Amino acid sequence: MAELDVVGVGNALVDVLTHAGEEFLRHHGLSKGTMQLIDEARARDLYAAMGPGVEVSGGSAANTIVGVASFGGRASYVGKVRNDQLGDVFTHDLRSMGVGYATPVATEGPATGRCLIVVTPDAQRTMSTYLGASTRLGPADIDKRLIERAHILYLEGYLFDPPEAQEAFRVAADIAHAAGRKVALTLSDPFCVDRHRMAFRELVERHVDILFANEAEIRSLYEVQDFDASVARVRGHCEVAAVTRSERGSVIVSGNGVHVIKAEPVAAVVDTTGAGDLYAAGFMVGLTRRLPLPACGRLGALAAAEVISHVGARPMRSLADLAEAVRR
Amino acid sequence: MAELDVVGVGNALVDVLTHAGEEFLRHHGLSKGTMQLIDEARARDLYAAMGPGVEVSGGSAANTIVGVASFGGRASYVGKVRNDQLGDVFTHDLRSMGVGYATPVATEGPATGRCLIVVTPDAQRTMSTYLGASTRLGPADIDKRLIERAHILYLEGYLFDPPEAQEAFRVAADIAHAAGRKVALTLSDPFCVDRHRMAFRELVERHVDILFANEAEIRSLYEVQDFDASVARVRGHCEVAAVTRSERGSVIVSGNGVHVIKAEPVAAVVDTTGAGDLYAAGFMVGLTRRLPLPACGRLGALAAAEVISHVGARPMRSLADLAEAVRR
Repeated sequence: MAELDVVGVGNALVDVLTHAGEEFLRHHGLSKGTMQLIDEARARDLYAAMGPGVEVSGGSAANTIVGVASFGGRASYVGKVRNDQLGDVFTHDLRSMGVGYATPVATEGPATGRCLIVVTPDAQRTMSTYLGASTRLGPADIDKRLIERAHILYLEGYLFDPPEAQEAFRVAADIAHAAGRKVALTLSDPFCVDRHRMAFRELVERHVDILFANEAEIRSLYEVQDFDASVARVRGHCEVAAVTRSERGSVIVSGNGVHVIKAEPVAAVVDTTGAGDLYAAGFMVGLTRRLPLPACGRLGALAAAEVISHVGARPMRSLADLAEAVRR
Repeated sequence: MAELDVVGVGNALVDVLTHAGEEFLRHHGLSKGTMQLIDEARARDLYAAMGPGVEVSGGSAANTIVGVASFGGRASYVGKVRNDQLGDVFTHDLRSMGVGYATPVATEGPATGRCLIVVTPDAQRTMSTYLGASTRLGPADIDKRLIERAHILYLEGYLFDPPEAQEAFRVAADIAHAAGRKVALTLSDPFCVDRHRMAFRELVERHVDILFANEAEIRSLYEVQDFDASVARVRGHCEVAAVTRSERGSVIVSGNGVHVIKAEPVAAVVDTTGAGDLYAAGFMVGLTRRLPLPACGRLGALAAAEVISHVGARPMRSLADLAEAVRR
């Protein structure tokens, strides 16, 4: 049995959340619901144009790993921050959740990465990411013993943006497979899939056991408009694929068939940031507990519902308690 | 007519908000609902013990000034941060609200100050403040022309903790009075009153035109248990005193009599951080618009109700819009 449930590798970011109207997106050329990469100068300009913000630790895989820990899972994280105030905040927030985090901190180079998130009145989030120190994550940061100890290695597609991190991604996946572990990937964003489509297809077809994606991402991966056609394409390529469809729930595809899982009802959707990240957390917690796939999907839906009911991409209540309450 | 409505002087802090149970307060020797000063080592230890946090710009007078701006008032702020990431966050959040802020940034010495805030399930907040760079605020930071331009100079009692800031406080008050402006003071915290009781009494009796306090603070100022007795003591010493009493509303004392103002109803009290700060904002906005005192108190109650209905000490909705909606 593995000593750890999930080890996640990703871009370590602090989120800066602000509310704005649709005209702010238009004026700054932002495409709603997606993530774009920005450089330091653009980050400075965009931040100056934004209203008052709230800073919360983020990063897609880091959000997922915190979700796993909140369910009571044993989790570790690999990602790069600098030795600055936002780096301290990021580190504190992971460790205070009981997540193992020991990636060496950068002592020079760019500051800790930031994701400027604009939440529109429809609760959609639009992200502009300055990767900063997370571009310095490289193969040397992959601790072989750590990867070998975890049941699932979870990788975010965003890792394909910084070239060194892409290399770290491949090294980590090879270590996990050599140790007989599972490799999970989230496609992260339709534009991220656009940027790296061939690499992602090859990964999904040859190296990924568990795939997470939303509808737009899976369509982008196979360049098809039809959802069912994209699901048919992914089937057979990896052990299991979980495709999320916002309020329409999720579809789980495996060699044994297709399961459709309903979305968990939510009183009010406040901020959709982190919905996919937390779905993946619940789903993987189910897998590590050897639950049937529909039960894994329901844990994912439960975690996603919690995170979209408040501002910020990390759970505010214990997911273990929530799961317990649902079971009763 | 003054070109500015309110200029505030205070300790510039970034709040780190976290949720915890009563046992956390007991275990760390924290006294619920109050503020204690801590040094850097204690700040590090306490932060390490805290759960995941959310960072939001804070500081008592800064919260008030943002409230004034949110009502549509013309406002400026004086307070000291360092040239670090949290200092940038603090500056951004003030300027993005249209607040004038030009205090020279410290380029050496301690980091930007932080207030570690534990919110208990009863929505009470308990604060531990590491003053950091705000201890470097001194008389040289008081811009004479700026103070002279504002209808009201608003000072927080917390300024009496760092010695240099106390001196800046006196310099600013003298400039305001010489220019025929009003001086407002908030007593900030009962323990702060304990630490500086004689200085505060002298100020209130000789130099303060508008006094803000809550029940515990006004009792501490005069060392009396009876609320009515403390109100009787303050009457006549300053032009107007507004004493807040949580869900029991507020009492406004002036030469012309006493007004009792009801609290604004709130669906759910989420976090009381900033209630007093925002009451002062609404009250002063009323004064600068020459509204009768009960109307000033109602604007204060409205702003306080908004800020206690969510996490964080700054308004999340436009107070000008809220005030407009109430008037209809």
